[in-house]
Amino acid sequence: MAILFTGIKQLLTFAGDNAPRAGAAMRETGLVKNAAVLVENGIIAAAGSGAAVARHRLAKKAKKIAVGGVCLPGFVDSHTHAVFAEPRLKDFSMRTAGASYQEIKAAGGGILASIGAVRRQPLGAMAAQLAARAGRFLECGTTTMEVKSGYGLSLESELKMLRAVRAAAELTPLEMLPTLLAAHSVPPEFAGDAQKYLDHIVAEVLPRVAAEKLAVFADIFCEKGYFTPEQATGYLKAAAGLGFRPKVHSEQLSNYGGTRAGIAAGAISADHADHVYAEDIAAMREAGTIAALLPASNFYLGLVKYPPARELIAEGVPVALATDFNPGTCPCWNMQFVLSAACTHCGMTPEETLCAATVNGAWALGLGGRLGAVVPGMQADLAFFNADDYRELCYYFGANQCVMTVKKGKIVYRKP
Amino acid sequence: MAILFTGIKQLLTFAGDNAPRAGAAMRETGLVKNAAVLVENGIIAAAGSGAAVARHRLAKKAKKIAVGGVCLPGFVDSHTHAVFAEPRLKDFSMRTAGASYQEIKAAGGGILASIGAVRRQPLGAMAAQLAARAGRFLECGTTTMEVKSGYGLSLESELKMLRAVRAAAELTPLEMLPTLLAAHSVPPEFAGDAQKYLDHIVAEVLPRVAAEKLAVFADIFCEKGYFTPEQATGYLKAAAGLGFRPKVHSEQLSNYGGTRAGIAAGAISADHADHVYAEDIAAMREAGTIAALLPASNFYLGLVKYPPARELIAEGVPVALATDFNPGTCPCWNMQFVLSAACTHCGMTPEETLCAATVNGAWALGLGGRLGAVVPGMQADLAFFNADDYRELCYYFGANQCVMTVKKGKIVYRKP
Repeated sequence: MAILFTGIKQLLTFAGDNAPRAGAAMRETGLVKNAAVLVENGIIAAAGSGAAVARHRLAKKAKKIAVGGVCLPGFVDSHTHAVFAEPRLKDFSMRTAGASYQEIKAAGGGILASIGAVRRQPLGAMAAQLAARAGRFLECGTTTMEVKSGYGLSLESELKMLRAVRAAAELTPLEMLPTLLAAHSVPPEFAGDAQKYLDHIVAEVLPRVAAEKLAVFADIFCEKGYFTPEQATGYLKAAAGLGFRPKVHSEQLSNYGGTRAGIAAGAISADHADHVYAEDIAAMREAGTIAALLPASNFYLGLVKYPPARELIAEGVPVALATDFNPGTCPCWNMQFVLSAACTHCGMTPEETLCAATVNGAWALGLGGRLGAVVPGMQADLAFFNADDYRELCYYFGANQCVMTVKKGKIVYRKP
Repeated sequence: MAILFTGIKQLLTFAGDNAPRAGAAMRETGLVKNAAVLVENGIIAAAGSGAAVARHRLAKKAKKIAVGGVCLPGFVDSHTHAVFAEPRLKDFSMRTAGASYQEIKAAGGGILASIGAVRRQPLGAMAAQLAARAGRFLECGTTTMEVKSGYGLSLESELKMLRAVRAAAELTPLEMLPTLLAAHSVPPEFAGDAQKYLDHIVAEVLPRVAAEKLAVFADIFCEKGYFTPEQATGYLKAAAGLGFRPKVHSEQLSNYGGTRAGIAAGAISADHADHVYAEDIAAMREAGTIAALLPASNFYLGLVKYPPARELIAEGVPVALATDFNPGTCPCWNMQFVLSAACTHCGMTPEETLCAATVNGAWALGLGGRLGAVVPGMQADLAFFNADDYRELCYYFGANQCVMTVKKGKIVYRKP
């Protein structure tokens, strides 16, 4: 049966070109006041002014739900490490008590702690935990997210992580797009020989992941002490040859060349981008690569510098925002906090942040034609907020204003 | 009827001396695992290990509620400006679009916007809005908050704000302690003559507020361009003479002398403290003045510098944490975000932040003997969180982990 959501004070449709938004187009929210959205069979049948939508042939017989507030496309979180075994509470305690990164590492913390825990955890428990976390994302208005492997760093454990994503998809309505991030770090077994590890991934891991269709994307962490730009390009090209869409973690800690390395392999997005230079930005604009910015991690790490959103937008690079949810550097699942951090620390306007977390997030996952806008024919993924004005989602911060989430036309979360 | 909350994985009691916590005592959480809390007539009858509490004479007949997770004393938010007429969305939009503070002010923004809106708003609407906001605090685990006037800055409008707090108290179970902050800024009517305005408050406003018993505390903003340290001491002494407990906004923007000015008048807390020097810290320790730190506002303003919590704690000053919830510089009602910001930006440990937001928050409001700890005989104000370990409340950030709030023994919020 069709559902008619009525009484919406402000609906942001993000109707527009069938392409990622860049420049001034990032501020075009497609705002409709006193709006309604009509949904049938998981698809948006009509969206716009309440009066216009009420005239649709399906409206009369539809189930009416009066919602009020602000309605957006469900958030599309294009960068998460949401599958992991346990939070890094010990590291957190040590860090807040003044321990250095080296001291934490010496105590068995850091990524090695996550790797050990992931290798030990059974798949069933991993999937159940991920599904529980997915519930927290849904409550905050996120309807789709990318999920990376990368805390196993062995054939079996990377496969286990991706199989856990697949198994969790049966337990939660949140749509998850898996990414193989076996090239997250060099595991102890290959210590000192990053290239040998990449060769191993290409020879052993990628084919298995491809055969089981366990991942859509392949990603690599291009940074000093991890993988070089040359290695990133070579690896991502090999992955692309096996059918994976490349992504890259680039210029997070320094300007090292990862952005252009990713672009050379056809990366759909270059993520973090904290330290991009003009040449990187020009290359992204040229290639149409999306910059996925992750400012919540900057907050958690206590960094002074945030990603240069204004330069990227001024130069015409489409910008997406994502949580970077992960146990080591960003334990935040709420996209609303990311919106706020992007406004207050990256100089983005509320309109730009909302575009970046919806339509551009969808494009960063190759789903722009299907998700990220409230337009007839697109998937009915919606988030409703207790607010009179959409800017409140960015202005009030550190909490959750979402009161209802709709995935493929079904209400999957509703605050009583 | 008595209620028995059972199955609590971790209960932080903060049992201890009947005094604000300082130094190493701020890390003593009184953690009990596998705990229970027994409540009768709004008072805690027993709290501790599940087995011990089950032997209490009231336990057998009590209504049992299995809750799991982490239980804390309800947060005591000792510094908010929660009564105001409207969010400053226009200012926010201008600021994120690059406008300077001067440009925002020239467009009618800043505190003048809040003053105009407050003076126009009827008392009933103001009270209803405050009660709605109080609901958001309750959902995040806050059971008591201080609420300041200070957006009216005229006799009638300041009275209206405080009367709205009193009226709102009939509409929400959240306990609110009102503070007269008529000395927030010099209003247009007294432009250029701060002393004349203070004399007016002392002569006209304080006596009326005292006569109607509308406020517990009197507060002043001591900062360059607002009120001098000499004015602050004189004003707060006059207020104290009329029965108000002094508080002070001090060293927020610069080291200006407000902390010692407040102490000279017997301030119970000195709030913000971003720019305190060693002499200020020594004076606070000497006087037993509580430093109420407000790091969420630093985040919102994009500041690099945060309050020096480590120095304060090292020197034995009792530290409280509060939201500073207000429409201009901190639209955040969630104490959990404050905990996280204090850990990641002020170097506080999770234990210290939780102490600062509960027991020390209560002492900052003069309620330490009654609130802020889960100890037999104290008021049954509790917050329950969906977490296995209390550190998760600080570690995960930007969202709400609270699932149930109990005020005076009654469940006032429960997530389904």
